[in-house]
Amino acid sequence: MNEVKTILTALKEGKLTVDEAVHQLKLQPFEDLGYAKVDLHRKVRQGTAEVIYGAGKTAEQILGIVGKMQENEQKTILITRLSPEKAEMMKKELTFTYHPTAQLGLVGSLPCPDGLGTILVMTGGTSDIPIAEEAALTAEALGNRVQRLYDVGVSGIHRLLSHMEEIMSASVIIAIAGMEGALASVIGGLADCPIIAVPTSVGYGAAFEGMAALLSMLNSCASGVGLVNIDNGFGAGYLAAMINHMEAKG
Amino acid sequence: MNEVKTILTALKEGKLTVDEAVHQLKLQPFEDLGYAKVDLHRKVRQGTAEVIYGAGKTAEQILGIVGKMQENEQKTILITRLSPEKAEMMKKELTFTYHPTAQLGLVGSLPCPDGLGTILVMTGGTSDIPIAEEAALTAEALGNRVQRLYDVGVSGIHRLLSHMEEIMSASVIIAIAGMEGALASVIGGLADCPIIAVPTSVGYGAAFEGMAALLSMLNSCASGVGLVNIDNGFGAGYLAAMINHMEAKG
Amino acid sequence: MNEVKTILTALKEGKLTVDEAVHQLKLQPFEDLGYAKVDLHRKVRQGTAEVIYGAGKTAEQILGIVGKMQENEQKTILITRLSPEKAEMMKKELTFTYHPTAQLGLVGSLPCPDGLGTILVMTGGTSDIPIAEEAALTAEALGNRVQRLYDVGVSGIHRLLSHMEEIMSASVIIAIAGMEGALASVIGGLADCPIIAVPTSVGYGAAFEGMAALLSMLNSCASGVGLVNIDNGFGAGYLAAMINHMEAKG
Amino acid sequence: MNEVKTILTALKEGKLTVDEAVHQLKLQPFEDLGYAKVDLHRKVRQGTAEVIYGAGKTAEQILGIVGKMQENEQKTILITRLSPEKAEMMKKELTFTYHPTAQLGLVGSLPCPDGLGTILVMTGGTSDIPIAEEAALTAEALGNRVQRLYDVGVSGIHRLLSHMEEIMSASVIIAIAGMEGALASVIGGLADCPIIAVPTSVGYGAAFEGMAALLSMLNSCASGVGLVNIDNGFGAGYLAAMINHMEAKG
Amino acid sequence: MNEVKTILTALKEGKLTVDEAVHQLKLQPFEDLGYAKVDLHRKVRQGTAEVIYGAGKTAEQILGIVGKMQENEQKTILITRLSPEKAEMMKKELTFTYHPTAQLGLVGSLPCPDGLGTILVMTGGTSDIPIAEEAALTAEALGNRVQRLYDVGVSGIHRLLSHMEEIMSASVIIAIAGMEGALASVIGGLADCPIIAVPTSVGYGAAFEGMAALLSMLNSCASGVGLVNIDNGFGAGYLAAMINHMEAKG
Amino acid sequence: MNEVKTILTALKEGKLTVDEAVHQLKLQPFEDLGYAKVDLHRKVRQGTAEVIYGAGKTAEQILGIVGKMQENEQKTILITRLSPEKAEMMKKELTFTYHPTAQLGLVGSLPCPDGLGTILVMTGGTSDIPIAEEAALTAEALGNRVQRLYDVGVSGIHRLLSHMEEIMSASVIIAIAGMEGALASVIGGLADCPIIAVPTSVGYGAAFEGMAALLSMLNSCASGVGLVNIDNGFGAGYLAAMINHMEAKG
Amino acid sequence: MNEVKTILTALKEGKLTVDEAVHQLKLQPFEDLGYAKVDLHRKVRQGTAEVIYGAGKTAEQILGIVGKMQENEQKTILITRLSPEKAEMMKKELTFTYHPTAQLGLVGSLPCPDGLGTILVMTGGTSDIPIAEEAALTAEALGNRVQRLYDVGVSGIHRLLSHMEEIMSASVIIAIAGMEGALASVIGGLADCPIIAVPTSVGYGAAFEGMAALLSMLNSCASGVGLVNIDNGFGAGYLAAMINHMEAKG
Amino acid sequence: MNEVKTILTALKEGKLTVDEAVHQLKLQPFEDLGYAKVDLHRKVRQGTAEVIYGAGKTAEQILGIVGKMQENEQKTILITRLSPEKAEMMKKELTFTYHPTAQLGLVGSLPCPDGLGTILVMTGGTSDIPIAEEAALTAEALGNRVQRLYDVGVSGIHRLLSHMEEIMSASVIIAIAGMEGALASVIGGLADCPIIAVPTSVGYGAAFEGMAALLSMLNSCASGVGLVNIDNGFGAGYLAAMINHMEAKG
Repeated sequence: MNEVKTILTALKEGKLTVDEAVHQLKLQPFEDLGYAKVDLHRKVRQGTAEVIYGAGKTAEQILGIVGKMQENEQKTILITRLSPEKAEMMKKELTFTYHPTAQLGLVGSLPCPDGLGTILVMTGGTSDIPIAEEAALTAEALGNRVQRLYDVGVSGIHRLLSHMEEIMSASVIIAIAGMEGALASVIGGLADCPIIAVPTSVGYGAAFEGMAALLSMLNSCASGVGLVNIDNGFGAGYLAAMINHMEAKG
Repeated sequence: MNEVKTILTALKEGKLTVDEAVHQLKLQPFEDLGYAKVDLHRKVRQGTAEVIYGAGKTAEQILGIVGKMQENEQKTILITRLSPEKAEMMKKELTFTYHPTAQLGLVGSLPCPDGLGTILVMTGGTSDIPIAEEAALTAEALGNRVQRLYDVGVSGIHRLLSHMEEIMSASVIIAIAGMEGALASVIGGLADCPIIAVPTSVGYGAAFEGMAALLSMLNSCASGVGLVNIDNGFGAGYLAAMINHMEAKG
Repeated sequence: MNEVKTILTALKEGKLTVDEAVHQLKLQPFEDLGYAKVDLHRKVRQGTAEVIYGAGKTAEQILGIVGKMQENEQKTILITRLSPEKAEMMKKELTFTYHPTAQLGLVGSLPCPDGLGTILVMTGGTSDIPIAEEAALTAEALGNRVQRLYDVGVSGIHRLLSHMEEIMSASVIIAIAGMEGALASVIGGLADCPIIAVPTSVGYGAAFEGMAALLSMLNSCASGVGLVNIDNGFGAGYLAAMINHMEAKG
Repeated sequence: MNEVKTILTALKEGKLTVDEAVHQLKLQPFEDLGYAKVDLHRKVRQGTAEVIYGAGKTAEQILGIVGKMQENEQKTILITRLSPEKAEMMKKELTFTYHPTAQLGLVGSLPCPDGLGTILVMTGGTSDIPIAEEAALTAEALGNRVQRLYDVGVSGIHRLLSHMEEIMSASVIIAIAGMEGALASVIGGLADCPIIAVPTSVGYGAAFEGMAALLSMLNSCASGVGLVNIDNGFGAGYLAAMINHMEAKG
Repeated sequence: MNEVKTILTALKEGKLTVDEAVHQLKLQPFEDLGYAKVDLHRKVRQGTAEVIYGAGKTAEQILGIVGKMQENEQKTILITRLSPEKAEMMKKELTFTYHPTAQLGLVGSLPCPDGLGTILVMTGGTSDIPIAEEAALTAEALGNRVQRLYDVGVSGIHRLLSHMEEIMSASVIIAIAGMEGALASVIGGLADCPIIAVPTSVGYGAAFEGMAALLSMLNSCASGVGLVNIDNGFGAGYLAAMINHMEAKG
Repeated sequence: MNEVKTILTALKEGKLTVDEAVHQLKLQPFEDLGYAKVDLHRKVRQGTAEVIYGAGKTAEQILGIVGKMQENEQKTILITRLSPEKAEMMKKELTFTYHPTAQLGLVGSLPCPDGLGTILVMTGGTSDIPIAEEAALTAEALGNRVQRLYDVGVSGIHRLLSHMEEIMSASVIIAIAGMEGALASVIGGLADCPIIAVPTSVGYGAAFEGMAALLSMLNSCASGVGLVNIDNGFGAGYLAAMINHMEAKG
Repeated sequence: MNEVKTILTALKEGKLTVDEAVHQLKLQPFEDLGYAKVDLHRKVRQGTAEVIYGAGKTAEQILGIVGKMQENEQKTILITRLSPEKAEMMKKELTFTYHPTAQLGLVGSLPCPDGLGTILVMTGGTSDIPIAEEAALTAEALGNRVQRLYDVGVSGIHRLLSHMEEIMSASVIIAIAGMEGALASVIGGLADCPIIAVPTSVGYGAAFEGMAALLSMLNSCASGVGLVNIDNGFGAGYLAAMINHMEAKG
Repeated sequence: MNEVKTILTALKEGKLTVDEAVHQLKLQPFEDLGYAKVDLHRKVRQGTAEVIYGAGKTAEQILGIVGKMQENEQKTILITRLSPEKAEMMKKELTFTYHPTAQLGLVGSLPCPDGLGTILVMTGGTSDIPIAEEAALTAEALGNRVQRLYDVGVSGIHRLLSHMEEIMSASVIIAIAGMEGALASVIGGLADCPIIAVPTSVGYGAAFEGMAALLSMLNSCASGVGLVNIDNGFGAGYLAAMINHMEAKG
């Protein structure tokens, strides 16, 4: 709010006329007036990661953004949808960890988890794991404890049920599945916490690139389930992190 | 094969020339040549029902067909998709039982079941029951023992699991569900017999008149699941009856 | 866990053989073994509402369920998707409040809110209000403070922006819109809390019964947005209530 | 059921308290309580194949699974959706037959068929043959006699009709077709046994990757037809095998 | 061409300047310059019907158009998509035959057929008959001999095959079917003349208002098949009439 | 009909019993009984081409089929959807002309045209030409005179209208267009002969691989238009050839 | 800007501290800061109509809004999507003209047109007229001269071409068509001004409620065409009015 | 009009008979009769670019067209959808500027802008820039001043709002966005000029190649928005140029 105050003080002190002040206020960035979110991640927790969406940016562009963030003393930076090729090129100029399955780059180290509880990331099959890792690493980078439970699809429901302990004790569950996407409904019928469902494009034929899983999850007859876009592991991890950091407000 | 034989005998006896026989053979109904299925239901079991598809036929037309069947000594006749209005009109001239939930009419009594085992008809919710009753009554009319297990959807999976006894001992299972249609996948992961999945048009919004359940069931990652059309309870009951009457062949 | 213990105690005391105990355990309802969620709402808070999904149930059936709940001393009961006709019929035998816009019936009074903060329910237009009221009343019945902000769609973005105060101070936001569904994205770009997006079937032409809003919301480039089915106000209210009652776990 | 019995016996013998027994029962794998299908294939017949879904697994992972199965004395193992490249790599360490058309690997030899009759695998065109071979080999690996009848589509219906003998004597028919998928309906009008229809992605333009065949088959006006997913030869072979091994139950 | 000639003659005779003639030519209706089709039906045959598309016109408007046609000595007039209500109203002022099944009105009598041969109109089921009658009566009104063959769908293919005589001797075939629309493909594999396929909206579930039949027919692997819109009986009858009146040209 | 006659003669002469004759008749190929189309192309005209659908067949398979046809004295053979690679390979062993634009191979020379008139092949743009050439060459190979009129789309309607002479004098018109497919409607409003419309997959964005053109053409408000599948030049050429060879029948 | 100035003046005069001024500025409506459009219609022209979207508002609500507008001296008020029933009810308390075809109410009289030229409103058929009237009256109410040209679809292209004079002299054209929507492309190929295309839901079968026309228009190969939603006559009239009032800026 | 005049003069002078003149008029190209648009761009402004659509044309074909245009003294020529490979080849024989991002080639220099005001080209993200550059360069080549404002999507709405000055002063706005396409609605709610919305195929999952953005933009509840096809930057630039050159007419 410094700049608005500066203008008003200048007005008060007679350095500006009222009309000049009106004009300068109109040019003022919105943040200063409180009309935009500032420092979202900081609100979640001091020290969590900043996020760069890597798809559609060149290695040079990403390096530039990372550089500026580091100048601002940002320690943990997450780069999503980062192809191995770009990661390779960036490695020459930057020290960071690359997770090839999730196609994520991590600058700095993961913050200590400080959420309300554990985020449980589950997948129906092994082919859903890349999306699951994107979700899990995103949540970890935003300061959450994460437990992974992969390949527990409903076609072998006993495998799923033998993990009731983890399901019942999770704070938030991310349910990731392609094909018929039934995992979200079944977990929704078992668990007692918010569930973020992620349809994936895994499957063939009438899976229609994730459409079948998407529709299935949207129609889940279980309550407490919210969806993100097909293959959007990052979005699920981010929303789960938000929920896992809820605190009394107002 | 009588008529073909009659022609050939007439030829042999000189009552027809070769050309006349050729001409008559061309006019011969296909059944006589073995090119069509005859007496399908009889193959399933002596004494099961004949079926009339009631939709798009007037009460008069249905009465006429029933009349002819009765002349042929058919005792049990099933009339599907029979609206209450038509049933009302038909009641004046014919004695039969009307099942309003399933919109089915039954002339005569149900045959004694003689299949390999029990057909289990399950639904995800209470709104799926009309389709389930169509399936169940069809199977019963075709000579099968049927057990009903309604409203055991996956959003309360404990209700479903408390029926493992019935699921494990069924011969064929008909899994009927709208919305996200996850029932078929879950049953497919539990049961050990052929499963006929029936998507229903129950639901709203992105259920898209049964499309969501249909796609979900088609993509079931469980093996041993076959599908019929949305809301096609009759088709499921018929196919289940066929499977429940399998016998050694050839 | 009483019944399992009773069986085991009987075994220990010699009243049952091991085989008899195994058999009885198999028949035991799942809840007792901890394999199912029990008393979800109670976990959220003592005294919140039980919920009955009214669509596809007759007035008699609903009255029956309400009766049983009341025997179990349940004070607040929410009945969703309750048509005015059924409500009229039920009024003869039950005292309850009927909300015609939301098509909700409420037995007993709303509980005192005890969540983390306020749930803000926003709509893009006036035609979305029935869904919004379903969401808002559901959240209230589950013990949440709710603020309503209707008809603040993005085509008059200044109206929306003049409510930044409420947006920034909300604990969870439910963003409800038909047509192009842009509300969720814009709120997602402004707010700093989890957002539940509800596409509605409001619109005409290429709105395709809510499909346009659904796809738009799924593709929101803002983070922190989760979706429920088209017109699913109840689901949004329920999920928001869950999130607004998060607490440290494990 | 051994482990449950062990726990109960320990309880009876005073080695465990009731509370300890309750705790141990909760950790018990579900199979032991009868809540999951065990040894499905063994139920079909002693000695049939185990199946590994090869897609999305590396050659190393597949070799590992095969190794464990062989330790358990499994003689016949079927690996589906196995690309030629992976097969090539596996050949260095494992002796098995690779069927390039069906993209199937077979460890060990095919079991002697012991089903009720013959499974007839039919295709509309030559391009459907890969899917047909996947179905046929799956059925053979599960202990069924299989007859192949390829390229008998309805556009040359006389070719189809000249095979009435095989059609009438089959126990189960798998009807595989792309483009307009009419084969299933025509076979359904001729045959007298359960039919598993498999739409394929063969075609161009308005075939929409198998969508046309899928919808066509779902709407078949013939009775006794069940569907599996587009291109799902394995699923069809598996379901046909199940049906061809039906036996009296309960 | 009279008016153009009049202008040119006036020019030649000096009654118009060149510029005046240019201006008048620009205002000249296109027909006179040969840029539009004139008297299409007359080309087909002297004396065939004119056609009025009745949907979206009031009874008064239709009566007006009929009146003008009669002034021009048109004897046979076909009114398509004419609802019983409008027909009732028109009956008071006009003598004509109303065909309720096809929702067609016919002013005057049918012309003598004078095409190359017979147009065969076939349907898969009885529910397709209204569309078939629209096609058949249209063709008759345009001067064609028509043979009807209804309810010969592919699920009872022997019924279809017993009509090979008619199929082989037809000049053009109109194949009308809903549900899976396989009739067109099967007829295409049997017949030896152009086939006009008409998908109908008959069916339920995944028939999707005729979409399934439409896609099926478009993908027919038989040659010699052309399609018209769903339920477009008139279009099929019209195109068949055109083909049945082909004659040497140029 | 020789073989049927042989059987009947043998019966008549006492060389077969009636039962033996019945059995042999059942094994008789359908063609002999007149239940299948024989020599379709010959019916169109002596000497026209046989057609081989090249897609999904290897160069060797095609060479084999050509060889058999040549043994049967077939002089003109058309091979559709023949890739340049296969054509290259075939060239080593067979003399034929390859049309790379249409991806068609032609063995022998084109027959003299003998249809009723000229088939006019029109395209909306230059990208539609490959499909147009497939249609044109097919029609030529089946004995038709063909005129090509390419790139006369409706966005420059004067170019189209300057060809009224050809449009009015055509016997059949094949209208080929992608994108919005309006060509068929406009030609349908101008011409006076049957029109075969071919939607193409030319376009981008909301053209959806030909879907836009397909729907547009199906809804053409012009009469006398029939459709084939997206990109199906062969089907259009074949149907046009049939129509252009209509003759009095029966 | 008065209120902002008032705050700043109060600050300058010492009646407010800087912090108080900052706080008051944050509460200030956005319009005052210039962040929202104000008086859009006034910009177009002094005296044009205000618009009320009538759908989803009760007669009382509409009367209330009209009342407020009249207090603000608004003379011309347009009420769109106003059903005859609501209009009837409103007539009791308000004097206004109701256009039943367009379902529009007009309070006050139409303003004198003052745009750059004439807006030409064209339809393909007579069933498109309601949408056309909505567009035309909207444009008139916003101060434009409008010419109507109805039922000039492309299936009778000479009718269309005989209106070249009007087409060439229009300032903006609104092209309205259902079914195949080819009108927009053809006009786009003829005219020399911006074209607003409006797909309508007129049609049946594969018209899919306007989807066919929508896709067709989107793919128009003519330049200078922009689209609005299916049946959105108001939107087209409004955008055309804007374009017809363009003036030099900046 | 020269040739028509020549014919009429010849007639007047007796060099042609009336019948000969009629015949020659029929062969006359339409342009001469005023039935086609000529020199569209010239109407916009003397000296603007001619446009060649490069996709589906070879480098040689494009060079040929450019050559002819240059012979006609055309100075500025725009080549759209020109791949880098073709550009490379053309560079050997022609001097021109290639814009790789927009895939546009420009022969000659950009004309001086002479429209009513500035065209503002905005994108939601950085991946939309290629389409935006196509639109911007097209508009510049047609004589417009263009301002670019990229990556101002609604998920960071403050960035967007900080550009109110440019938004309010634009003459026409081109709003380009993929994913949820909300940009068009938000701009539509802020701006006061015609908006051309361009959905792009940017996004993944349920973006469905631009379908989500397309539907969203079509349903924009803001007035004054017109759409072009997905990724059609050229079409947007062209339509914007037309609108920016509106002038009083008639």
